[in-house]
Amino acid sequence: MSNTIYGIAIFPSKNIQDLANSYRMRYDPAYEKIPPHITLKERFEATEEEINLMIDEMNKIAKNMKPFKIEIKKVSSFSPVTNTVYLKVEPNESLTYLNEKLHEGVFPSNRKYSFVPHITISQDLSDDEFSDVYGSLRMLSFDLKDEIDRFQLLYQLENGSWTVYETFKFGE
Amino acid sequence: MSNTIYGIAIFPSKNIQDLANSYRMRYDPAYEKIPPHITLKERFEATEEEINLMIDEMNKIAKNMKPFKIEIKKVSSFSPVTNTVYLKVEPNESLTYLNEKLHEGVFPSNRKYSFVPHITISQDLSDDEFSDVYGSLRMLSFDLKDEIDRFQLLYQLENGSWTVYETFKFGE
Repeated sequence: MSNTIYGIAIFPSKNIQDLANSYRMRYDPAYEKIPPHITLKERFEATEEEINLMIDEMNKIAKNMKPFKIEIKKVSSFSPVTNTVYLKVEPNESLTYLNEKLHEGVFPSNRKYSFVPHITISQDLSDDEFSDVYGSLRMLSFDLKDEIDRFQLLYQLENGSWTVYETFKFGE
Repeated sequence: MSNTIYGIAIFPSKNIQDLANSYRMRYDPAYEKIPPHITLKERFEATEEEINLMIDEMNKIAKNMKPFKIEIKKVSSFSPVTNTVYLKVEPNESLTYLNEKLHEGVFPSNRKYSFVPHITISQDLSDDEFSDVYGSLRMLSFDLKDEIDRFQLLYQLENGSWTVYETFKFGE
């Protein structure tokens, strides 16, 4: 049996997901595969035994955390590395801490880039489309605040969509 | 602020979801809105205060349950009531118990039909399409077994897709 592919993410509150989807439906081919999210750990493979060890560890990590606030003020892009456009989550110690904990010890250190917390709203566009889309979205400003009190472990199905496997609530 | 729409469901294991999706991608317009699932409680509205009471209750319900097995042997349909075609989950006391607990006490009794545990693989087809699809799918037989050890509370986004809000693991 082949390994399952997992990812770890935070889903912001419904109003922020609805806002992100209003852009994603036009600009993000992954729109239908997963709700809007902040990736804490990119896709990784694990056996059942390995993921169970990580689940124990995620329970411990969550238990020792308290809910924290995040802010979103603007749109940014990873260009020229990729054409991804995203809602920029302002730098946040708790998110950085979580990201670090999920890449050490029993967790694979599958880090491609340094951690920039974000909610993707556009990706995989052609260069011309990207210029148009980012040119207009970068003018937007927001004053979005949210409280984060949990994160989620997901696995990927064969069609590329993601199913939530477990929720880790802070302080529990 | 308007109420949020919630639902309660079980996601079967990945191999069953992948099998269900192989049919859903062709025959179910809701394919992209939620992974394959067994609905325990249909969509209902709740305020934040109401859902928090229900979450306390769901924690208690889950704590008192043990993982249980389900079996899928064939395809069936709700025709002529609706054109829905589904993987029939064999009658199961634990599923019936969960369904009942989630419709009493603090939970709204929003029951449209009697409870028939199932995983939808086709819906909202025209009568002709339905006849074709069901005519071929009803010939299939399966020998699928799965162990269920959790259920999930979801809420619906404006685009109709569902986000998992919380996981309730049995015995915890």
